[in-house]
Amino acid sequence: MITIRDVARLAGVSVATVSRVLNDSAIASKEARDKVMKAVKELGYRPNANAQALATQISDTIGVVVMDVSDPFFGALVKAVDTVAQRHKKNVLINNSYHQADKERHAIEVLIRQRCSALVVHAKILSDEEMIPFMVREPGMVLINRILPGFEHRCVGLDNVSGALMATRTLLKQGHRQIGYIGSNHPIEDERQRRQGFMQAMAEEGIVPSQSWQAFSTPDLQGGEEAMVELLGRNQQLTAVFVYNDGMAVGALATLKENGIAVPTQFSVVGFDDIPISRYTSPNLTTIRYPIFAMAVAATELALLGTAGRIDEGQTHLFMPTLVRRHSVAPWKNVAAIASSSEDEM
Amino acid sequence: MITIRDVARLAGVSVATVSRVLNDSAIASKEARDKVMKAVKELGYRPNANAQALATQISDTIGVVVMDVSDPFFGALVKAVDTVAQRHKKNVLINNSYHQADKERHAIEVLIRQRCSALVVHAKILSDEEMIPFMVREPGMVLINRILPGFEHRCVGLDNVSGALMATRTLLKQGHRQIGYIGSNHPIEDERQRRQGFMQAMAEEGIVPSQSWQAFSTPDLQGGEEAMVELLGRNQQLTAVFVYNDGMAVGALATLKENGIAVPTQFSVVGFDDIPISRYTSPNLTTIRYPIFAMAVAATELALLGTAGRIDEGQTHLFMPTLVRRHSVAPWKNVAAIASSSEDEM
Repeated sequence: MITIRDVARLAGVSVATVSRVLNDSAIASKEARDKVMKAVKELGYRPNANAQALATQISDTIGVVVMDVSDPFFGALVKAVDTVAQRHKKNVLINNSYHQADKERHAIEVLIRQRCSALVVHAKILSDEEMIPFMVREPGMVLINRILPGFEHRCVGLDNVSGALMATRTLLKQGHRQIGYIGSNHPIEDERQRRQGFMQAMAEEGIVPSQSWQAFSTPDLQGGEEAMVELLGRNQQLTAVFVYNDGMAVGALATLKENGIAVPTQFSVVGFDDIPISRYTSPNLTTIRYPIFAMAVAATELALLGTAGRIDEGQTHLFMPTLVRRHSVAPWKNVAAIASSSEDEM
Repeated sequence: MITIRDVARLAGVSVATVSRVLNDSAIASKEARDKVMKAVKELGYRPNANAQALATQISDTIGVVVMDVSDPFFGALVKAVDTVAQRHKKNVLINNSYHQADKERHAIEVLIRQRCSALVVHAKILSDEEMIPFMVREPGMVLINRILPGFEHRCVGLDNVSGALMATRTLLKQGHRQIGYIGSNHPIEDERQRRQGFMQAMAEEGIVPSQSWQAFSTPDLQGGEEAMVELLGRNQQLTAVFVYNDGMAVGALATLKENGIAVPTQFSVVGFDDIPISRYTSPNLTTIRYPIFAMAVAATELALLGTAGRIDEGQTHLFMPTLVRRHSVAPWKNVAAIASSSEDEM
């Protein structure tokens, strides 16, 4: 292996000078810099990132913890972090937590051990008590999609309850009353908050949704497909459904189609997140937009400020979801009329 | 910061003993191990991963370079690497290359600098000449979706031409003759190989597709949507299209639907990759399965073998794509009949 000593010998300078040049120290002369860089190029020498990190105690890597990078929502999150990282000439180290306590803890610890000074962490399972020591120890650690009491200035959150209220009210305004809820079976607060928004909007209209109007599964395409099958099987005469996320909503649309139920003429669907595919489903999905790209950009900028000790402690970062009207919702009054006309067509 | 010296002092052992225990050396006694781990726990000491990597010259991190982690195909690749990594108690460091030469080069260099000894690299832009020195220097580097001459035993590839032949022949067998091609505008060999397979299958039937039967765009949902708009606008009386990847095919389906063209009764579509969404489109997409999960698992296992100098140099790793028949292809002869009956319904 080529070492810094080989570079020093070829350049005819001291090891300390090579080190100064490679660390961009202003002390190195232009002449020394030229000699060293020429030797580095000739020998194909690679400065050792680990040694550099040790020396400066700050690595040039931003760590990011997500549930699963292959989920489109988290893919968008990681891409946003990467965009900011490139602008700052930093690299990105990613770890999946799969919403499991041991993996979540391990993912954070690994990134800290790798000397990531800036950390964007999506951690939903570990308790506040377990998160606090991490936050105290790592000033560049920022939480996304979670508000940790006492660390609000280092948390980027979304008002999930408002989003779910918006989704459910959209269906209620169209005259729907028998509205189902398809939820996630991951034990995270997003699920509780979105169901809470659903229940609250229904209560505003004096409706208490029965347990049999609700079904839970994994928060992905297949989970949505299965939950919709379950709801249809219970024969509750639902005319609409609010779905935990767009992945599940796309799965639910597939089930409805297989069962010959036309969306939106016979059945309305509202999702949550607004992932890219939602503009391409048939019909295009009406959904609640989770501004994950903007939030992840904000979280990354905040984490970098944190490593420099420059976070404004008075500022909080709560984002609001918005309604995206597409074509998966129609008024309830149409259901009976269209249902019989579609039978004519068969 | 708590150092190894603090641990040694509290445990009442030497620094060397602490180091041995933390590196799982068999030399450390059970008694020393217990003392050290107790002190580590009490002090909240974190072994410095960079220092460990320096000491052993092998990091516990597997590096992976992909085009873009937010693309579902590459999401699946990264997830496969992560699955193997977890089994071996390794971490994963991901870098995006965006199919740009400078980013591709930088992504590989960064992972090497971070002392990733095992590397799974999807690099399509850098020349063979530029790839070879990396491969020589890094025995744990394995290429995925590329066969580098002289390093076949460290490459995991797919026969793209066969896949495209299969896709196009599927359409030809159903009586289609006016078959379009929607391609990627990324300058990578996958594109050239898939178009080659398309041209070859057409030639077998004595058909020379005109340039105006082909359209190119970004290999994603929006790109497919735009390319299909372009093909329709040229009014070439196409009855089917073979699409570079499933993301683009889903975009093309959306365009066809917007234009009132029913798939598969009036128009047939075949994609490539078989990403998860392809089972949930309407209609479900007939496609060529790219076994990316199995290939990425194989590449990761190979990379780990490489770090141990145990790769079998006589073995090559070329995977074959398979046809997945779903519901986006119908016989050509039906087109006229169905087209008029669908007009009746309107």
